[in-house]
Amino acid sequence: MKQELLFEGKEKQIYATGNESEVVILYKDDTTAFGGIKKAMIKDKGLYCAHISALAFEALNKAGIPTHFISRISDNELLCRKMDIRPLQLYVRNRICGTTAKLLGKAQGTRIPNTLYEWRYNNDKLSDPMINDDHAVALGFASYEELNALRDLAHRANEVLKEFFHKAGIELVDFKMGFGVDKDGSFVVADEITPDNCRLWDEQTGKVLDKDRFRFDKGEVGASYREVMERLESIGL
Amino acid sequence: MKQELLFEGKEKQIYATGNESEVVILYKDDTTAFGGIKKAMIKDKGLYCAHISALAFEALNKAGIPTHFISRISDNELLCRKMDIRPLQLYVRNRICGTTAKLLGKAQGTRIPNTLYEWRYNNDKLSDPMINDDHAVALGFASYEELNALRDLAHRANEVLKEFFHKAGIELVDFKMGFGVDKDGSFVVADEITPDNCRLWDEQTGKVLDKDRFRFDKGEVGASYREVMERLESIGL
Repeated sequence: MKQELLFEGKEKQIYATGNESEVVILYKDDTTAFGGIKKAMIKDKGLYCAHISALAFEALNKAGIPTHFISRISDNELLCRKMDIRPLQLYVRNRICGTTAKLLGKAQGTRIPNTLYEWRYNNDKLSDPMINDDHAVALGFASYEELNALRDLAHRANEVLKEFFHKAGIELVDFKMGFGVDKDGSFVVADEITPDNCRLWDEQTGKVLDKDRFRFDKGEVGASYREVMERLESIGL
Repeated sequence: MKQELLFEGKEKQIYATGNESEVVILYKDDTTAFGGIKKAMIKDKGLYCAHISALAFEALNKAGIPTHFISRISDNELLCRKMDIRPLQLYVRNRICGTTAKLLGKAQGTRIPNTLYEWRYNNDKLSDPMINDDHAVALGFASYEELNALRDLAHRANEVLKEFFHKAGIELVDFKMGFGVDKDGSFVVADEITPDNCRLWDEQTGKVLDKDRFRFDKGEVGASYREVMERLESIGL
């Protein structure tokens, strides 16, 4: 099924298939942070992330939220619909956290009455700067209507994913929502939903179960990813 | 009329008056850039800025756009209504310029099809970070409705000010719109409209007539401010 390598990212590979509307996404064990400055190999991370992503995309698909996910085809590979992409990232935050906490001078995890939606311009040379709607339109990445449609998709995905993780006793603190553009021009959730692009905290203890363990040398990176996978499996979707 | 000093800024002073709903704003000759790192005294800059501000606020008032401006009471002093302020700055850009050009990796003055509205959180310690609507709401600075009302005020002020400067052969490239909150909770244009907070380019030659002359050591700072004042005076508002 897997044919030539189309794209090699820091933590994933994308392969062509016999069907030109489908691709295989392979989750590597490589782990990187701070724009690739910090690197490691975490045994079986690819397996954990592929499995968590598959479960999360299934939950979204069941809830009627369009995703690129078709099926899991091996331990660390997902078959997905091929999508056009935009040079835009969308962060969804249910608390003030990550780089936003530093930007605003607030403590990590500060509770807020609303949800934060943040665009970033996907550009390594510029360090993926945070931009606003007007910048995205000026740069030709999307129309105002499309940005609103993406925010609406992100809002709906956030509601489903918060409940999905909550059933496993995990709080979805924030996530970077990958998205693609379908053949008919509509947006779908894409990329991944894993401890690599989500902040996931144990609801009871506050224990960090995501990539911040790797970023900030908290240890037990692979064990935490496995814990997330096993807790999600155990709720029997 | 001028009583005790209420506030001393880098380039302005605000004094109480006998009327508690009014203040005197004194424009100093002091000039600063890059958060106060670069400093100089430009002879008569206070006079030029007070006069330019007075003319611009009069143009806005005539167009039915509310401002804090009442009258010019001396060479470098304006009588204004006292306003409540928020820790928010609003930049309005008609081209990609200033720090935004660097952020987006675009040439200074790149033309765009839309207008950029950018919030900054007024906080010296955090270097006045650029934020979006969701951040402003999360921090309690304004509601979504208020942010939209401010953007609408800025849009209307921009249309009037573009035409005001255009009559003098000057392009309004961008400006930081100061604003205050009136007794009835409505927003008004406030602070200043000068070469200190506007980018002003000669329409024919592209010559920079604003604080970028000081920031980037282009010389003729005072002469350029005086030129802006004299060209605006000559159009006989």
